[in-house]
Amino acid sequence: MARNICVEPYMATPIEKQQIELVERKGIGHPDSIADGLAESVSRALCKEYIQKCGGVLHHNTDETQIVAGRSIPEFGGGQVIQPIYILLVGRATKEFQGTSIPADTIALKTARNYLKNTLPSLDVDCNVILDCKFGTGSSDLMHVFGRDSKVPVANDTSFGVGHAPFSELEKIVYNTERALVEDLKKKKGQKAVGEDIKVMGLRNGEDITLTICSGLVGQYVDDIGAYVNIVEEMKDYVLDLVPKYTQRNVTVDINTADDIAKESVFLTVTGTSAEMGDDGSVGRGNRSNGLITPNRPMSMEATSGKNPINHIGKIYNLLSTQIARQIATELDGIDDVYVKLLSQIGHPIDQPLIASAQISTKPGVKFDSMRKEAEGIIDEWLANTRKITEMVAKGELDTF
Amino acid sequence: MARNICVEPYMATPIEKQQIELVERKGIGHPDSIADGLAESVSRALCKEYIQKCGGVLHHNTDETQIVAGRSIPEFGGGQVIQPIYILLVGRATKEFQGTSIPADTIALKTARNYLKNTLPSLDVDCNVILDCKFGTGSSDLMHVFGRDSKVPVANDTSFGVGHAPFSELEKIVYNTERALVEDLKKKKGQKAVGEDIKVMGLRNGEDITLTICSGLVGQYVDDIGAYVNIVEEMKDYVLDLVPKYTQRNVTVDINTADDIAKESVFLTVTGTSAEMGDDGSVGRGNRSNGLITPNRPMSMEATSGKNPINHIGKIYNLLSTQIARQIATELDGIDDVYVKLLSQIGHPIDQPLIASAQISTKPGVKFDSMRKEAEGIIDEWLANTRKITEMVAKGELDTF
Amino acid sequence: MARNICVEPYMATPIEKQQIELVERKGIGHPDSIADGLAESVSRALCKEYIQKCGGVLHHNTDETQIVAGRSIPEFGGGQVIQPIYILLVGRATKEFQGTSIPADTIALKTARNYLKNTLPSLDVDCNVILDCKFGTGSSDLMHVFGRDSKVPVANDTSFGVGHAPFSELEKIVYNTERALVEDLKKKKGQKAVGEDIKVMGLRNGEDITLTICSGLVGQYVDDIGAYVNIVEEMKDYVLDLVPKYTQRNVTVDINTADDIAKESVFLTVTGTSAEMGDDGSVGRGNRSNGLITPNRPMSMEATSGKNPINHIGKIYNLLSTQIARQIATELDGIDDVYVKLLSQIGHPIDQPLIASAQISTKPGVKFDSMRKEAEGIIDEWLANTRKITEMVAKGELDTF
Amino acid sequence: MARNICVEPYMATPIEKQQIELVERKGIGHPDSIADGLAESVSRALCKEYIQKCGGVLHHNTDETQIVAGRSIPEFGGGQVIQPIYILLVGRATKEFQGTSIPADTIALKTARNYLKNTLPSLDVDCNVILDCKFGTGSSDLMHVFGRDSKVPVANDTSFGVGHAPFSELEKIVYNTERALVEDLKKKKGQKAVGEDIKVMGLRNGEDITLTICSGLVGQYVDDIGAYVNIVEEMKDYVLDLVPKYTQRNVTVDINTADDIAKESVFLTVTGTSAEMGDDGSVGRGNRSNGLITPNRPMSMEATSGKNPINHIGKIYNLLSTQIARQIATELDGIDDVYVKLLSQIGHPIDQPLIASAQISTKPGVKFDSMRKEAEGIIDEWLANTRKITEMVAKGELDTF
Repeated sequence: MARNICVEPYMATPIEKQQIELVERKGIGHPDSIADGLAESVSRALCKEYIQKCGGVLHHNTDETQIVAGRSIPEFGGGQVIQPIYILLVGRATKEFQGTSIPADTIALKTARNYLKNTLPSLDVDCNVILDCKFGTGSSDLMHVFGRDSKVPVANDTSFGVGHAPFSELEKIVYNTERALVEDLKKKKGQKAVGEDIKVMGLRNGEDITLTICSGLVGQYVDDIGAYVNIVEEMKDYVLDLVPKYTQRNVTVDINTADDIAKESVFLTVTGTSAEMGDDGSVGRGNRSNGLITPNRPMSMEATSGKNPINHIGKIYNLLSTQIARQIATELDGIDDVYVKLLSQIGHPIDQPLIASAQISTKPGVKFDSMRKEAEGIIDEWLANTRKITEMVAKGELDTF
Repeated sequence: MARNICVEPYMATPIEKQQIELVERKGIGHPDSIADGLAESVSRALCKEYIQKCGGVLHHNTDETQIVAGRSIPEFGGGQVIQPIYILLVGRATKEFQGTSIPADTIALKTARNYLKNTLPSLDVDCNVILDCKFGTGSSDLMHVFGRDSKVPVANDTSFGVGHAPFSELEKIVYNTERALVEDLKKKKGQKAVGEDIKVMGLRNGEDITLTICSGLVGQYVDDIGAYVNIVEEMKDYVLDLVPKYTQRNVTVDINTADDIAKESVFLTVTGTSAEMGDDGSVGRGNRSNGLITPNRPMSMEATSGKNPINHIGKIYNLLSTQIARQIATELDGIDDVYVKLLSQIGHPIDQPLIASAQISTKPGVKFDSMRKEAEGIIDEWLANTRKITEMVAKGELDTF
Repeated sequence: MARNICVEPYMATPIEKQQIELVERKGIGHPDSIADGLAESVSRALCKEYIQKCGGVLHHNTDETQIVAGRSIPEFGGGQVIQPIYILLVGRATKEFQGTSIPADTIALKTARNYLKNTLPSLDVDCNVILDCKFGTGSSDLMHVFGRDSKVPVANDTSFGVGHAPFSELEKIVYNTERALVEDLKKKKGQKAVGEDIKVMGLRNGEDITLTICSGLVGQYVDDIGAYVNIVEEMKDYVLDLVPKYTQRNVTVDINTADDIAKESVFLTVTGTSAEMGDDGSVGRGNRSNGLITPNRPMSMEATSGKNPINHIGKIYNLLSTQIARQIATELDGIDDVYVKLLSQIGHPIDQPLIASAQISTKPGVKFDSMRKEAEGIIDEWLANTRKITEMVAKGELDTF
Repeated sequence: MARNICVEPYMATPIEKQQIELVERKGIGHPDSIADGLAESVSRALCKEYIQKCGGVLHHNTDETQIVAGRSIPEFGGGQVIQPIYILLVGRATKEFQGTSIPADTIALKTARNYLKNTLPSLDVDCNVILDCKFGTGSSDLMHVFGRDSKVPVANDTSFGVGHAPFSELEKIVYNTERALVEDLKKKKGQKAVGEDIKVMGLRNGEDITLTICSGLVGQYVDDIGAYVNIVEEMKDYVLDLVPKYTQRNVTVDINTADDIAKESVFLTVTGTSAEMGDDGSVGRGNRSNGLITPNRPMSMEATSGKNPINHIGKIYNLLSTQIARQIATELDGIDDVYVKLLSQIGHPIDQPLIASAQISTKPGVKFDSMRKEAEGIIDEWLANTRKITEMVAKGELDTF
């Protein structure tokens, strides 16, 4: 059956030409991102267990993970968590299949502990966190066996996913600023005071970019207010050194704008995340599956993390539309922006969307007509291979936040 | 201090001219909307209590409300809830202020019960629901007294809100279809079988509109499969009669596409909401504050419902940008689309955004330049009166989902 | 098979001749008693549902019900609950049996609400209480069908029950003081200020009895400190009028000994129970199944309330031993005290205890030998009819606390 | 002020002469004992922290700890926990005192984890257990400073404690059987298959003693059914070798009487405790503070574990009465049994009980009169030094279960 694919030219001020552009990224230690990360890592661990024990992924959704903030008393040189962070892993999982028991809750606890240890090295998982787990049982009739069963799953919902490509300069900067601060400045260069809860808000006003960065330092690695000021300065310089890779525009960096240095009222944490003090988190309320929040671009509200990668259309179509957009932007010349939207109808096979739409904004002088067919081909091929997304998710090859 | 206001012309295919448009609305009985509605109604009740007892709204956020689905056995002519829906009201609230105790949890329970009774008349709140409540205490230093304290609150976060106007045809149709089915067909015309959990997904492909409606009927008002088929047909006819008010395009209506009438496998509920059987819900994962999900339009990820309307920028700026966009679209002639974005910086007064951006897409032949000043004036005036948003929220004059 | 029954003479100072005797009763509004009452009423409701739907009682235990205290601000003429009481109904219940679903949690919620309304009339169940419910599923192989299946269930545990008779004077006084204050003074005579949370501690020192009564009055029915003093006086007089029915000894009554009238620091409540302010409660930590706590008598630690009445030996043997003791004390002449103990061994039929022991303390001059046979007969007959206890429990004919 | 002390002779068949005697002990791995142990260890850790930070023990009660059973699939050579055990640490603790924060929940989590690791070596605390913690805040006005403040605390309740001495033969056997199986056979002699959840029920019928022992072996240390039979036999022989230390009577030992060896249906566990599979636990429902349940002796219903040792009379008087009884039994010659009861009145100093009663049953020919004064002296001295009990508890010198 032919697929409903619609590729249209899109006349719009290209993103780089728009006067105002906003881009946000919540770092991996932001409470919403912790929720996303836990939900997705638990889902992956379940996928692995299901495949190993039952030969295919069974029904599950772990996307309601909730972080309830604790209370802490951060201090230069130390500090302590007074009230532990409460983390509730909640959702549904198949716990029995054809006589085989799957210890879903046990796996979830183990996976979540490891995820927290690896992601938040200053968090003492033994006593700064209460890790609770309440998985209901899902229906067991939703098995899809890789390699054997050739039937395409049907959509579990009427829902859509969206994706775009390529990243704008500001999108690249915002994404990579957070990544580099944690992975390079902290882990490789050894500046342990950098916390994992880094929020980067990028504003481009014409040729001027302002990065507003909010980042709680880790008290035990900051001796006093002087050290604090120095480290913040170091982070600022680091970012200013980094951005020329991505832009020639003027960049201003503001870090922790609410600090009052004179009063020593600054943004310090015990554990590196503001979940320790007042900030709750939920799955699906932070970054979209491309790692960003981009109000200048189409977005989907669907949470991607923690949903099963077999038939949960909110997950599959978001990941898929981003992959499609990226391939179109890479393989076709003369494109400013591509926007892809995929819409399912509940009960219909996921490879037959109600509509697969691509809007392409071309560079001046580039002819659109020649592109249509190529773009349609790319879309059609991805839809013919939705299973590939499932496999990439189960293998952990696709980020979800 | 002059405000950072930027009004720019936006060259883009106007929404009505784009080939593909997607619009979604989750009805008031959808689990995500129930979460939004509870969060917002509890926040309103707290506002009222705070104003009455303390002369001003105190710090609170009730935006982490969580719905964990129950299990049910729906049947023609009745059915029963086997496992109650679990609802957790969670967040933070000031419980003591200058010696006065505020019974936040008690108020929340009472308000939530009433909200559920009014919103879901087929739900037996006494035994189909477990209503739990765990409010932490917030800081009490965040009071803002209307009429006395003239100081503008500072933003609690670096965050943005977005809004657009006017609604497209499809946006009007999707929004009003759900509203009319519940408020008119059910309440006024007495078709009690219509459940409150109505999801409307609108797709416009050029001149053809497809409305995919998912709506669980209430079993006790549906005698048998024949009655079911008739009621679904009645709903379809009702919608087809309704849409010409908003469009001249061709409209197709699909209701409960996953039904298998021959096998009597249809979408029936006991209570009118799918929260009774497997569908969880969270605040901020459904409709944006304008009541819709619109991937062809800029959107914010911020949850609006349940946040305090004094300094929670994620709430105020979303509501404010929508108000601004609507006023610009109404008062200025020759506009196709207006997009407004407001960005705060933590610690700065909320009337002084880091940027207030309006992108205006004009009709052919309309000159932009004359508009700039008027638009700037509207933005400036709203920013000078952010308190108005707070008051409208406290009075319940603004919808949030 | 002959039963292991051992009836022995017991030489002991009879209870009425011992110098010091202690007896305690926690009233029906005491947090531990609320937990007991909820657990037992839910169990009864489940028994009824199981019998109706499945023809026999299925496996369940609701005996882990937990009351977490709230916080309140009691006042003369009113007061309010600031933090609701949290009640968790927890245990195990069969939710599916041979294709039939039993809505255990739904029934539990409904039953618990009704129990609270009837027991604590000043408690606003809608907003002074959070009623949570988390029943796990038990094994479904434990069905015992009345009237059809003649097999005796086997004990689920190695455990014992104990009972004694007759009640001493002090036991009668303590038990009936609480009962009369609630059922007669409050309900019949209309003194609504009497709360349901009445703890009566009886001390007999030779011929002098001291009743220490702790009883939180209900604020809305007490106008001021003067009224409070009068009502406490009224309660005291009421009790002093009551006790001559049971004793000729000297009786002193102390009510709310921690009150400081001058400072108006007195024992007032909003709801009639101290669960509103700081006092938690659990099943099985209060009264034994005879309604009393009696350190001068043998007691069992087993919780009786909320356990299934089919094979839960901790419940059945406690109720059974009390019935046996009472029948022996009633039917045999010349007895001071009878103590009955029944010990099971896990896996053995409940009508075949490892030992059924009766210790009989006779009045001076009474010959024990003639009693042995009669007592053995009474014990043997009850053991041959353990089903009778099950039926009495299911019908609600036996108190458990 | 003279104390109300009453020492009376008690004419009763001495325990060793009674025909039937029952004694029970729940081992340290029994769910009720785990709850007791966690509650008490957390209370001790808080005492330590309070003393260190505030110079005295502050108000707290951790005695509502609850164990909700998990589910497991035990197997010879291994097995796994399918559903983790849920442990809720709940109660009240002072979290702030004169500007100092006390991280009560953090301490509780850490202490509980360590306690579980040390007590149940086969339990994987990281993924077989969900450790939750919800401490409310208590009043901070209840501080008692050792060494400085000479005022005696007042009783928090009208309540009593009871104790007896010496242990009968059966009491010694039951207590030491469990202790030796865990501490000697398992830990010293290396028989790791012995689980920690050992319930010993002792019945003495005249000169014949039957010990019914229920003990789940640890699957990973039991290769197959043959090994199981051998280990149970080894345990039986071990106990039979042990008991002659305490008695010359005939002793029969029954272990795991519900086993069906032919069907390989035996009592196996993954973790050593039946909390992994269906058995819930609560504080105060198991052993009394002397480590036993003794229906032939006076008992108190009060939970001892987890209560604060400053003014919680239910704890202090139970521990105190046992100490008094033991000293009387040790120091005075010619005593069969001593029973001590202490009764408080709320609001009165704990060194001034409403009654302190001792009942002494003397050996034939021994004169009671000479004993009275000595016994009174012992009681009076202990009451003059109630602080000693507090100190012993804080130092961990007194067992509570």
